[in-house]
Amino acid sequence: MPLSKIQAIAFDADDTLWENETLFRETEQQFCVLLKDYMEEEECNKLLFDMEMKNLPLYGYGIKPFTLSLIEAAIEFSEGKLPISVIEKLIAIGKEMLNAPVVLIEGIENTLKQLSSKYQLIMATKGDLLDQERKLIKSGLEPYFHHIEIVSDKTPKHYQNLVKQLYIEPHQFLMVGNSVKSDVLPVLEIGGHAFHIPFHTTWEHEMVKEPVEHPNFRLLSKASEMLQIL
Amino acid sequence: MPLSKIQAIAFDADDTLWENETLFRETEQQFCVLLKDYMEEEECNKLLFDMEMKNLPLYGYGIKPFTLSLIEAAIEFSEGKLPISVIEKLIAIGKEMLNAPVVLIEGIENTLKQLSSKYQLIMATKGDLLDQERKLIKSGLEPYFHHIEIVSDKTPKHYQNLVKQLYIEPHQFLMVGNSVKSDVLPVLEIGGHAFHIPFHTTWEHEMVKEPVEHPNFRLLSKASEMLQIL
Repeated sequence: MPLSKIQAIAFDADDTLWENETLFRETEQQFCVLLKDYMEEEECNKLLFDMEMKNLPLYGYGIKPFTLSLIEAAIEFSEGKLPISVIEKLIAIGKEMLNAPVVLIEGIENTLKQLSSKYQLIMATKGDLLDQERKLIKSGLEPYFHHIEIVSDKTPKHYQNLVKQLYIEPHQFLMVGNSVKSDVLPVLEIGGHAFHIPFHTTWEHEMVKEPVEHPNFRLLSKASEMLQIL
Repeated sequence: MPLSKIQAIAFDADDTLWENETLFRETEQQFCVLLKDYMEEEECNKLLFDMEMKNLPLYGYGIKPFTLSLIEAAIEFSEGKLPISVIEKLIAIGKEMLNAPVVLIEGIENTLKQLSSKYQLIMATKGDLLDQERKLIKSGLEPYFHHIEIVSDKTPKHYQNLVKQLYIEPHQFLMVGNSVKSDVLPVLEIGGHAFHIPFHTTWEHEMVKEPVEHPNFRLLSKASEMLQIL
């Protein structure tokens, strides 16, 4: 289907509009330094990822689930031997993450500004409702979006609902994001278009090994390339 | 405005569709028992509420913020002297809360069933996205709702957006809930109708002292009374 039919463009938020993954990865490093008396850094990183995956179905995505997993991991990795001050520190780290400034991805504001005059723009993200709303407000990007969609996960069904809500057909919908797993594959599955703009850091949980080949798919290196294509 | 114009009815979720507050109050009691070596129960309850209020703007509503506040409070109330096993216990309590069975409010299912043939029904709740979605699925009430709206707070602006999304006027909208502060006052403010159905327990944060007097307002003792009025 040609791109000329596109009516609505949805943007993922974390690592598509603003940096996010870097904050989590930095915090994981900081965590493993705090735990260095009990565990080697490499093992700590691996087991922390396992802990996050174990808790994901119950906790969902976001900083608060991450903070709870850090606390649980710290107790488990130290076999309950760590001082209470480390737990206090982890609570403080979680709050710092929630309060962190929003760093925009290069060129995104101008891209949104140009596109917003021709298309209905949507922010479509998973994660914590309050955190994502707060980041959107801090980002200054809110005025460019017609609609904000924050979902607990990004499955084909979630995208079908979104397209239905917008009163358009899947082939009139374009999703833009940094995760092949969440932003590309489920959208192609329902007959939509998808642009993948990789961020330099990808969470292991979001990794997809096979390259995507599909007529409705494009791989871009930065957001501003959209302006030449659309 | 007459009730005969109503087209859409939105229901609050926690303590309107299913029990919620009881779970939080029971956990607070359990917490203060765990902390009894460091603080009297009455003081513990009061200071825990203060801790939750302090963290509310940053953490938002829900079980995960509550669990983080319990951990922070436990460390603070014991001046860092409590054993790590108490923190472990609090993590476990938080997970139990997330996994707790959903207990429906008496008569709600039949009320929704009857109303769903005449009105567009919406679930409109604040709180954690994943938790509320999970409770909705567990409750078995999902088929009665045309639309699910989970917001970070319930302000007049949030209700205005909801009414706009439904393509109706405020006087065609009725909100039903257990909180005067969240479900009644902001809806009356935008020109909608509101039914208050109190739950036996109300969180101090949601309390409103003055009784409501407004032509668009009704106080009901149970959900099934709606069937006689509408």
